[in-house]
Amino acid sequence: MRDVAVIGVGMAKWGELWDKALRDVFVETALLAIDDAGVDHIDSMYVGCMSSGLFVGQEHLASLLADYLGIAPVPAARVETACASGGLAFRQGWMEVALGQSDIVLVSGIEKMTDVTGDGATYALGTAADQEYEGYHGITFPGLYAMMARRHMHDYGTTREQLAQVAVKNHRHGAMNPLAQFPFEVTIDQVKSSVMIADPLRILDCSPITDGAAAVVICPLDRAKTLGDKPPVKMVGSGHATDTIALHARPDITWLSATERAAEAAYKMAGVKPDQIDLAEVHDCFTIAEICVTEALGFVDRGKGGQAVESGFTALGGTIPVNTSGGLKSKGHPVGATGVAQIVELTKQLRGDAGDRQVEGARVGLAQNMGGSGGSTLVHILEAT
Amino acid sequence: MRDVAVIGVGMAKWGELWDKALRDVFVETALLAIDDAGVDHIDSMYVGCMSSGLFVGQEHLASLLADYLGIAPVPAARVETACASGGLAFRQGWMEVALGQSDIVLVSGIEKMTDVTGDGATYALGTAADQEYEGYHGITFPGLYAMMARRHMHDYGTTREQLAQVAVKNHRHGAMNPLAQFPFEVTIDQVKSSVMIADPLRILDCSPITDGAAAVVICPLDRAKTLGDKPPVKMVGSGHATDTIALHARPDITWLSATERAAEAAYKMAGVKPDQIDLAEVHDCFTIAEICVTEALGFVDRGKGGQAVESGFTALGGTIPVNTSGGLKSKGHPVGATGVAQIVELTKQLRGDAGDRQVEGARVGLAQNMGGSGGSTLVHILEAT
Repeated sequence: MRDVAVIGVGMAKWGELWDKALRDVFVETALLAIDDAGVDHIDSMYVGCMSSGLFVGQEHLASLLADYLGIAPVPAARVETACASGGLAFRQGWMEVALGQSDIVLVSGIEKMTDVTGDGATYALGTAADQEYEGYHGITFPGLYAMMARRHMHDYGTTREQLAQVAVKNHRHGAMNPLAQFPFEVTIDQVKSSVMIADPLRILDCSPITDGAAAVVICPLDRAKTLGDKPPVKMVGSGHATDTIALHARPDITWLSATERAAEAAYKMAGVKPDQIDLAEVHDCFTIAEICVTEALGFVDRGKGGQAVESGFTALGGTIPVNTSGGLKSKGHPVGATGVAQIVELTKQLRGDAGDRQVEGARVGLAQNMGGSGGSTLVHILEAT
Repeated sequence: MRDVAVIGVGMAKWGELWDKALRDVFVETALLAIDDAGVDHIDSMYVGCMSSGLFVGQEHLASLLADYLGIAPVPAARVETACASGGLAFRQGWMEVALGQSDIVLVSGIEKMTDVTGDGATYALGTAADQEYEGYHGITFPGLYAMMARRHMHDYGTTREQLAQVAVKNHRHGAMNPLAQFPFEVTIDQVKSSVMIADPLRILDCSPITDGAAAVVICPLDRAKTLGDKPPVKMVGSGHATDTIALHARPDITWLSATERAAEAAYKMAGVKPDQIDLAEVHDCFTIAEICVTEALGFVDRGKGGQAVESGFTALGGTIPVNTSGGLKSKGHPVGATGVAQIVELTKQLRGDAGDRQVEGARVGLAQNMGGSGGSTLVHILEAT
């Protein structure tokens, strides 16, 4: 198995990109990654996308995008596991390079979510839940995560303020990320008085609907040393696990077992323990999600995720800074792109190239990308070289 | 890179399965493959599916299916490249086993296409074309392939009868496949007098709308020898290539360059030439498609695909029997399942287990699975052990 490294990253401004088609958003971002990597060709491509069929009426996505990028006839594959599609794309690309099947692989993620009308986005996102047992009965994702939040508050005494502090922290980080959709700070009072979506979650507890893409170029570590002028970042751990996608079928709706298992696999492969992680990008689709994820990753004890954010443990300057990019909350959440954007942020940080939000001395970073209410999770661990 | 083998195959009756949900169709088929392989667990799973989002309102498919099969928390990935999604699933599964990341992998394909109303299926299938430059202007797949047919007739003198002979041949084969959706013979006159869809293509030139799944179990060849009681079938060649998904952007609309390139890669890896192929399953979504594919695979010279079917070259008993399963035409075409069903048929043939439609002495088989009007193609070559 060959060692694999990230040698280039690309991301453009995220937001409501009504003046660009899906293919334009992709090509702009992919070219940034290719330029950053300093490569003159691509051998193969992956794109993570949750639902271009429902959002823009386009399947057969990988071929379309490869063509518009000008790299057809190379192999191009779209992969999907709801909001974890980007993380899955990274894993599949890693396997292809590790195997020796391809050398220089473009791994991308994309979603164009604002071109639908009415409740189109809510419907499309709802297809990440179990449609027959959840969606058709009327529940949507804010409702599912609200139930997780209520239970977490009941079982562990997690407070409304602690939920808000996740949003406050991630917006504080995101205010330093010029590519974020909402690069501004919010206060606890603003979160607590924002519009109610699904009690206890308010709009500022929720990640937004976003158009955007992210891309990275990976290659064998040996070859990385001869390409580009930036230090390669080594892929040292990958984990992928699944769970019931229906929330009601889990023994404990506050425990993300797919995250726990994917992390176990990634930690084992990397030979590191949670306390050796210098920073993490995690899936804060809702504030409660980040709290549950930090527990399942082993950063804090079970039930202590709320206290961790309150204490500053997960803030920039804390023990394990989480979501220095702004997370899904402030940076935005074009669902298929999110997992790849996490790799973009970790790479910038591990290169020491993250500007005002740089984590001092960062050597090991972890990305956790989650589908649905936790029915699938990808965890990757990257290391500076 | 480890050698990989197919050790189990599963397929149930295809058709309009209104009494079964997508998850039921999957589980029934996957259990057949697991039983055939004689394994007691699965390490990882792939599912090829084109558009469960548009067909049944369900994304996050791999986790859902893994859960219902009872194999969660193992990694489960859905892959998509339109009607070639099944072939892509097989390639990704092969890479994972070849790498050594997993040992026993379930590769499946599925599509539940008859649960939509009105023109829902036509719309969903149309998303495999370039929506902005093809779909929104009104063209659908029969129209795209009709243009390819007209041009082939103009350039090479291909006849209406030769098109019909593809359907006649594949229905003759399919009549021997009890799992086929339409296991009966048709005559040239029936094809030529069937309802016109898009001149010159009539309804009996078109593959049907189908519900169905297919599954195979793969593992390292070394381990295959100790599992199950059937001879493993070795994966010896894999190729994947892309092309413009918009038909108008190609220099020659009758030439399937993605098929040519994917086949070149697979032939090179396998170390075989076209004339060493004993039988092939190819993507006859329309009768003209099979004609073009046999040319691009190098089975016959350019422009000679019509004559090949007329002469019996591609019939059971001919030089290279094509679509002994009945092909998409007679067996049915649940789009995401088709590529995996091709591997099922080749495995049965290379085991000598294909009953009345057995190709005598078959040692090397090729599967060609195509997305859209040829914008993506997967080619795999399997060998008896």
